[in-house]
Amino acid sequence: MTRFRFELLGDDGATAARLGRLHTAHGTVETPVFMPVGTLGTVKGLTPAQLEDIGARIILGNTYHLYLRPGMDVVRALGGLHRMAAWPHPILTDSGGFQVFSLRHRARIEEHGVTFASHIDGSPHLLTPEDAIGIQETLGSDIMMAFDECPPAGAPVGAVNRAMERTSRWARRCIAARTREDNALFGIVQGGVDGELRRRSAADLTTLPFEGFALGGLSVGEAREATWESVAAAAPLLPTAKPRYLMGVGTPEDLLVCVGLGVDMFDCVLPTRHARNARIMTADGDFNLRNAKYRLDDRPLDPTCGCYCCTNFSRGYLRHLHKSNEVLFNTLASLHNVYYLIDLMRGARAAIATGSYAAYKRELLARRALGAAPAQDAAAP
Amino acid sequence: MTRFRFELLGDDGATAARLGRLHTAHGTVETPVFMPVGTLGTVKGLTPAQLEDIGARIILGNTYHLYLRPGMDVVRALGGLHRMAAWPHPILTDSGGFQVFSLRHRARIEEHGVTFASHIDGSPHLLTPEDAIGIQETLGSDIMMAFDECPPAGAPVGAVNRAMERTSRWARRCIAARTREDNALFGIVQGGVDGELRRRSAADLTTLPFEGFALGGLSVGEAREATWESVAAAAPLLPTAKPRYLMGVGTPEDLLVCVGLGVDMFDCVLPTRHARNARIMTADGDFNLRNAKYRLDDRPLDPTCGCYCCTNFSRGYLRHLHKSNEVLFNTLASLHNVYYLIDLMRGARAAIATGSYAAYKRELLARRALGAAPAQDAAAP
Repeated sequence: MTRFRFELLGDDGATAARLGRLHTAHGTVETPVFMPVGTLGTVKGLTPAQLEDIGARIILGNTYHLYLRPGMDVVRALGGLHRMAAWPHPILTDSGGFQVFSLRHRARIEEHGVTFASHIDGSPHLLTPEDAIGIQETLGSDIMMAFDECPPAGAPVGAVNRAMERTSRWARRCIAARTREDNALFGIVQGGVDGELRRRSAADLTTLPFEGFALGGLSVGEAREATWESVAAAAPLLPTAKPRYLMGVGTPEDLLVCVGLGVDMFDCVLPTRHARNARIMTADGDFNLRNAKYRLDDRPLDPTCGCYCCTNFSRGYLRHLHKSNEVLFNTLASLHNVYYLIDLMRGARAAIATGSYAAYKRELLARRALGAAPAQDAAAP
Repeated sequence: MTRFRFELLGDDGATAARLGRLHTAHGTVETPVFMPVGTLGTVKGLTPAQLEDIGARIILGNTYHLYLRPGMDVVRALGGLHRMAAWPHPILTDSGGFQVFSLRHRARIEEHGVTFASHIDGSPHLLTPEDAIGIQETLGSDIMMAFDECPPAGAPVGAVNRAMERTSRWARRCIAARTREDNALFGIVQGGVDGELRRRSAADLTTLPFEGFALGGLSVGEAREATWESVAAAAPLLPTAKPRYLMGVGTPEDLLVCVGLGVDMFDCVLPTRHARNARIMTADGDFNLRNAKYRLDDRPLDPTCGCYCCTNFSRGYLRHLHKSNEVLFNTLASLHNVYYLIDLMRGARAAIATGSYAAYKRELLARRALGAAPAQDAAAP
């Protein structure tokens, strides 16, 4: 049995960026890494073969969604999430906490757990820290997340404090509920954008036997500079020897900045959601392919990109597919956007390995800023 | 320059089935062949790489649809249909006639051509035989179809006769309109299910310098036995040395029967349309995956199938994707259904090569009949 292990391979020198490797029962993952989100057991629009082709080696599953649909009896009958989704590589699952709290108006939080109504049929459900671990163990997750209370952006400090303290109590119950030894459990540091609360949350959770730590409750609506400041303050509070995961982040800028602050893992629905809305992420900034000026454009989405979409298809053709509501558009645009973030992290790892991450980050941020809206998104002439 | 050429490699002996090879400027195609339909320059849900993987070597494009969207200026700017759709293999295009007549209530047929209203924005358009050839040459089609008048099933014999005679006159105009020599033009035999009209149509068109012949106006609503009888009567009227194409057909049963009647080429939207409706085609008959009895079913769609979908995913998982409206379902189910028909024709070619097509056809028809509705489609207990 392979036990979970994080190997710190080196660091950048000039920044806090780190090079690492996650060892799991389903293989290794090089960090820093971007993890595509497969909410319902599928990264929207992409086959596992396509995900492998673009270099994805770890994907996310959502406990809340999979618990409601297809349901745990189906996942069990179909051999767990890996076999069901035909994904032989590592899987990280969230705890369900974030989704339950996104439906806050219908959720009732008590010390025992959270009662919520299904967004599908309104049926009532109770999710406790013990349930969250049980579900994740049934899914067969390689990296499980502790069940946390995630307050909304802008919550009063008292509420943030109470959520942070409850997260600490629930963290202990999550650890006690584990029955498997072949996977990891990460704790989630809360505290919103309040430095003192973050410090207290980190100080407490890092005393517990978690295999890694996440920063939760960030990028939930606050300004991106506030996110970056919180990460800058919180990352050094986490143990050097364990992986650091910034949940639900983010944009290429977020990834570039936060790798430099010492974050190892990221996940976000952005690349696939953007793709469905025809928003294309490129080295020269994002642009919206709906714009009429791309109608006859025979260039790839990103002329510098090496993905299957960019080496085969033109903007004009992809725009045609989008306007015609062809699902192939979702597939190709998602493939490109996800590849872009995965490739961004591949480049980051190469830069860290040579101690040149500061220049890598600076150049890529400048190029995206330079190429952004005015040049790419101007209205058609 | 490769000129179009049909090579007759052999026949079955006991049936009229033939083994052949189409030589085109974009490569060769073994016949009998099923051609997936890529209406708008994409076989719905599948990338060119996936089509290649399942053995597709020729796809269809629809003149009517591509003419309206993205429009010929876009196709021209993007380098023609092959380059635009990143499909390096042969493409057959229809003439637009069938779609125009499907919108019959809004089309006005005159000797000069057909005036119709766009189904997208109602704008008026005129399509003549000369236009149909011009558009197909711009698309870069390897096999163009003549512009024909296709009467609806059940039309009075006088109307069928007039359509057949007009098709003969338009055939001459199509031939005269050609400006390229690197592709083929197929004539379309009309005459509905009337044997005498079919004979007259075939007798006239086969005097013209077409590189192949299609049977049109079949499988448009009449009983399948009537289709088969018409094919049985009409196929021997076509020259042995040229390829025979049965347009818009069809089901696995249609393919198995009509290969045995000497047809070389088929196309149909059935496998992708069925896939979107969760109707799965298998060696043991079709079934609908929506049925609750597949909820926990960990078997592949077709346990005897070798496609990517069947070697990786379970019915239970695919049903979950379908119920969750995940586009990956369309991709995987389409991939399976198209593979099934392509593989059916691969098996047919192997059987013809050994003179055993009669047994191949009999066994596969029997197995599908045996496995059909009662066993597979029964309501959940």
